[in-house]
Amino acid sequence: MSQHRGDAAPHIGTLASGATGTIADVSGVRVGHCTLDAGAVQTGVTVVMPHARDLFREKVPAGACVINGFGKSIGLMQIEELGALETPIALTNTFDVGAVAQAQIRAAVAANPQIGRGLPTVNPLVFECNDGYLNDIQALAVTEEHYLAACSAASADFARGSVGAGRGMSSFDLKGGIGTASRVVQTAGAQFTAGALVLANFGRLPMLTIDGVAVGRELAARAASSRATQEPEKGSIIMLIATDAPLDSRQLRRVSMRAAAGLARTGSVYGHGSGDIALAFSTAYTLAHDAPTHALPPLLADSQLDPLFQASADCVEQAILDALWSASTVQGRDGHIRLALREAVPDLADLLAGGAQA
Amino acid sequence: MSQHRGDAAPHIGTLASGATGTIADVSGVRVGHCTLDAGAVQTGVTVVMPHARDLFREKVPAGACVINGFGKSIGLMQIEELGALETPIALTNTFDVGAVAQAQIRAAVAANPQIGRGLPTVNPLVFECNDGYLNDIQALAVTEEHYLAACSAASADFARGSVGAGRGMSSFDLKGGIGTASRVVQTAGAQFTAGALVLANFGRLPMLTIDGVAVGRELAARAASSRATQEPEKGSIIMLIATDAPLDSRQLRRVSMRAAAGLARTGSVYGHGSGDIALAFSTAYTLAHDAPTHALPPLLADSQLDPLFQASADCVEQAILDALWSASTVQGRDGHIRLALREAVPDLADLLAGGAQA
Amino acid sequence: MSQHRGDAAPHIGTLASGATGTIADVSGVRVGHCTLDAGAVQTGVTVVMPHARDLFREKVPAGACVINGFGKSIGLMQIEELGALETPIALTNTFDVGAVAQAQIRAAVAANPQIGRGLPTVNPLVFECNDGYLNDIQALAVTEEHYLAACSAASADFARGSVGAGRGMSSFDLKGGIGTASRVVQTAGAQFTAGALVLANFGRLPMLTIDGVAVGRELAARAASSRATQEPEKGSIIMLIATDAPLDSRQLRRVSMRAAAGLARTGSVYGHGSGDIALAFSTAYTLAHDAPTHALPPLLADSQLDPLFQASADCVEQAILDALWSASTVQGRDGHIRLALREAVPDLADLLAGGAQA
Amino acid sequence: MSQHRGDAAPHIGTLASGATGTIADVSGVRVGHCTLDAGAVQTGVTVVMPHARDLFREKVPAGACVINGFGKSIGLMQIEELGALETPIALTNTFDVGAVAQAQIRAAVAANPQIGRGLPTVNPLVFECNDGYLNDIQALAVTEEHYLAACSAASADFARGSVGAGRGMSSFDLKGGIGTASRVVQTAGAQFTAGALVLANFGRLPMLTIDGVAVGRELAARAASSRATQEPEKGSIIMLIATDAPLDSRQLRRVSMRAAAGLARTGSVYGHGSGDIALAFSTAYTLAHDAPTHALPPLLADSQLDPLFQASADCVEQAILDALWSASTVQGRDGHIRLALREAVPDLADLLAGGAQA
Repeated sequence: MSQHRGDAAPHIGTLASGATGTIADVSGVRVGHCTLDAGAVQTGVTVVMPHARDLFREKVPAGACVINGFGKSIGLMQIEELGALETPIALTNTFDVGAVAQAQIRAAVAANPQIGRGLPTVNPLVFECNDGYLNDIQALAVTEEHYLAACSAASADFARGSVGAGRGMSSFDLKGGIGTASRVVQTAGAQFTAGALVLANFGRLPMLTIDGVAVGRELAARAASSRATQEPEKGSIIMLIATDAPLDSRQLRRVSMRAAAGLARTGSVYGHGSGDIALAFSTAYTLAHDAPTHALPPLLADSQLDPLFQASADCVEQAILDALWSASTVQGRDGHIRLALREAVPDLADLLAGGAQA
Repeated sequence: MSQHRGDAAPHIGTLASGATGTIADVSGVRVGHCTLDAGAVQTGVTVVMPHARDLFREKVPAGACVINGFGKSIGLMQIEELGALETPIALTNTFDVGAVAQAQIRAAVAANPQIGRGLPTVNPLVFECNDGYLNDIQALAVTEEHYLAACSAASADFARGSVGAGRGMSSFDLKGGIGTASRVVQTAGAQFTAGALVLANFGRLPMLTIDGVAVGRELAARAASSRATQEPEKGSIIMLIATDAPLDSRQLRRVSMRAAAGLARTGSVYGHGSGDIALAFSTAYTLAHDAPTHALPPLLADSQLDPLFQASADCVEQAILDALWSASTVQGRDGHIRLALREAVPDLADLLAGGAQA
Repeated sequence: MSQHRGDAAPHIGTLASGATGTIADVSGVRVGHCTLDAGAVQTGVTVVMPHARDLFREKVPAGACVINGFGKSIGLMQIEELGALETPIALTNTFDVGAVAQAQIRAAVAANPQIGRGLPTVNPLVFECNDGYLNDIQALAVTEEHYLAACSAASADFARGSVGAGRGMSSFDLKGGIGTASRVVQTAGAQFTAGALVLANFGRLPMLTIDGVAVGRELAARAASSRATQEPEKGSIIMLIATDAPLDSRQLRRVSMRAAAGLARTGSVYGHGSGDIALAFSTAYTLAHDAPTHALPPLLADSQLDPLFQASADCVEQAILDALWSASTVQGRDGHIRLALREAVPDLADLLAGGAQA
Repeated sequence: MSQHRGDAAPHIGTLASGATGTIADVSGVRVGHCTLDAGAVQTGVTVVMPHARDLFREKVPAGACVINGFGKSIGLMQIEELGALETPIALTNTFDVGAVAQAQIRAAVAANPQIGRGLPTVNPLVFECNDGYLNDIQALAVTEEHYLAACSAASADFARGSVGAGRGMSSFDLKGGIGTASRVVQTAGAQFTAGALVLANFGRLPMLTIDGVAVGRELAARAASSRATQEPEKGSIIMLIATDAPLDSRQLRRVSMRAAAGLARTGSVYGHGSGDIALAFSTAYTLAHDAPTHALPPLLADSQLDPLFQASADCVEQAILDALWSASTVQGRDGHIRLALREAVPDLADLLAGGAQA
């Protein structure tokens, strides 16, 4: 039962955070954003890069879970079949998946001109949430240049909150967006890091639960007359988990499934209209595109995965809180506004501290 | 933020419970137990009956999710393919799945002597958890008569806690077992009931979270020197959800998936060694074995499912608490003891009331 | 053991064809093409429309199987979750999935201006094969106008072979493309029609099997020195099955799986690099977008599905042959040529007639 | 277009067979049968052993596909989650899965007395087909001793046809049972062997296709008045594939899926009532039960799998033919008789040789 301070999200669970508390604590992982902030256009692109080299040439193992499949991503089918990423992971709004997928293809072809000729085609991987409350999603505003700008901006030191793909996202009727977290675990006699990055765009206010405290019920009571709380959920969440632990795609799928636990603790029941998708990848080794065989490092036995499962769940919960804490208020199309949590709830610290007695 | 009283588990969420707060609030559903309590043999059988007629002749629609597949159940493959139950749902210990499956086959043949001759075979459905800490599981003590006794005992008025398949189960290093709950929802202009019954045999003490309060950390700190908390999880949980809402098997699979949310809120991250399985069925209609076509009642649109998703998650969380609250202390093989929660934690009410301040 | 005539593909199986021997024998289904034939650009778009009305407002039930997931389609995840189509089905080349998906979104928004505002977003559904041998796939030549042109051209009377999305496709080192077929079945006391449309872009010559005759071995022996037969397969096949039988999405998934049988009979072993995907939909009823409940017609019992399974497999095999028979020779990028089967094999009738003796 | 001789099944495809043409060509694999042949009891148990050591201590990687899930096996859920076998693979009749699963548990406990105590439980793996036409399946005649007898009999030199689990099985209205085959492939610069063993109990006579020749139509025409051909299919097929190629569980699942292609070529469309299940395992390495990490040999890249996919499909088709060719006529309950193919069709060689002209 941790001390809650209003100026920082509570620390979830008992595992220690990595050095920066971001997905970039997994060595080599970088994140880049391109943010579109122009009146009714409040959207963007975020990319997560498992390493700094050519992903088509040096794929990384990955696995994914569709917790609720009300979503329009591209790229998961091949990952399920082949268990590997071959492009950066891109996040954007629902209607710009196509534009970003094409940008990924063009970028891969630019780096490997034989793709689609002597080489096979490349599998774009784009996840999305619907930011249509704040963003004029019908504008289809994202273009190839925005994807490339996000890639160029990729860094271990990156912004969170109302940036990149998170620019127009809403969560719990508040401002959502990009959040991140990390955890360090010991298992099989070694230390590993897991990190999460989420694009949070889910949840209605009454559901909001912070470190076990159902603050959303109180907040919804205050806002009882508001229209917002009557609408069904139309959001989604994308949950990315990186780890330096040596795992194969089957094991990474298992790790990704634990995102469902972290998500549930924030109040979600995986609403009908929410595309809730988790993907985990490992940076412990790469799979050369044209190698006939793959010599892997020793893999963790499944019996050693529980600490990573705990880290996956805790990181995802923490990253969702981070998205709420990091968000800034955004006004978008038709005057729609989403308030940042801490702006909307000035007495948040009191609510969290006194929660269980109220 | 509800009032916690030590003599009753806190009410989870904001939905109202049904009349009895059990899965039998879904009209027609009955539950029966046969308990084996003889020294080192602490185990049993529990059956859930969707209706009182012949299930082979009048199947009910069902769907299931394997949240973590470290488990040895029988029957899910055909349910995934055909979307229907054709036997009572049986719960028992891991090593007696075979005995109970054979008992189900014999019972179905007794009722329909052409099964396996003029009629197709029947699909037994048996779920299990490993009760080996308290029970001498190697004894394979369950026989056909125990299954039949559980069926004969089936009633809308049934016991919970350390009974039936729950007799030898452990949860959070405490006594687990059978728990149940129900919720009433409004959707699509009508009222429906969802009920859950769980066989809770999962979790280590430090994880235990009750209505958002991480009491397990405090309890584990008290018990810090104990051997028990060092072991990896070897438990499991079976989560059954009944509803009278008219849903098809795809929708019931969606409802069953929300059990993962309720489970997560109690502290689980779906541990490696925990077979976490959810199954949902509907009593709104039956599927006649030999009908060439099935005229269904109007089905709920998927857009109307959110209240049922909420009910599924809340019921499962509530049913897990019910298992802990209803359990009585059991001593089994080799002097092993699992204490009932309220016996182990006399100041539970204080812990829950003051939780967030500690 | 049917009579083989060189000028028509052999009739597969013993079920009768529908009136036109196309997917449009399923009443209401229409197909449209837009073909790009300009030097190195040899590609296009094909659309399949389940009915003539607004699919977002009146969805149709659907189910799909990923037989081999080396593919880059968009839209399957939501179909698996919700079991319904809400756009026309579009086929194109691998790199233009994004462009066609955006075109589908724009068309849906044009028809329903509240999509992405008051209404949820729409799920584009685009399948692809890699036509890079004949087509300059790196040109990303397909645009929104081509999708709209294909939609405008939709008709029950449509071309096959080297048209639409089939323009640049190869199969068995020969010219592939669009093929179609239908079958009429009796079951549950009524008559139903199933139809298939395939985008055939798979297979190496030595595999080619026509109505059980392994002609590919002979043809490959003739062409033994050619480079083509040494390459690994990089193709794919999309198999669409329509039926007027009243089935739900689970049953339609079962019907779609039988496409794997028809595909196998032509010589495929679902090669590593071949995205082999099947989708089935029913025209027997629609699901109104905003209805709170869905009253369905009586559904066929699963026990009545075998004739439809047979039809699905036979239709798909027949449609693959139809693609080969209907194709015309195409020359594309860098002088690459794919010969039409009947042009490449003038003595095909003899080969088929004498097959088993050779 | 191979020469067909009536006294041996045609050789399927162009890959060479291994030395003995059985699954035991994969070094270390052994097969054992226990056959029950006593009047109305015509059934048995067959076991496949990946190696001669303790499988619980030294698990082998495995993957599986459910092609049609009308089946009652036990054990697949955990294999999907963990990707490994930890018992011999057992085959028996539908109603004796429970008895054999219990026998597997007892055998594992006998070898590892801490199973279910200090060690986790063990995952039995039992597949089944319904042999109720010949066998009095309601007798539940198989017991633990039969499982142990089959294990004791395990050898690289084993019988096929109407033996073991195959004793009472029917296929294409003829006598089915156990069949096996192997193929040798070159890939990634090395030579590997794949072998299949099937329990064939599927198919109606009109479907029967032998090496592309639809002989079943002719045979069904001869037998047109027989009752047998009017019944729906109630059979099933279990297809096991072994390989010495170093693959992980994801890749083995891919290999197992190609069994669907071999099965389809024999005439199956994966009938509604046929549980069609494939499982592949590798003998290239083992996974020690209590190792914290697993050092694997270099794994084949997915791009190198096509020869193994071809071998999987060809082996399965060949093994099905082998089951038909190896079977002897069996008379069982109520005077039911299934004729061996070569007894039922004395002119089989002529039919196969002249097939395509007829």
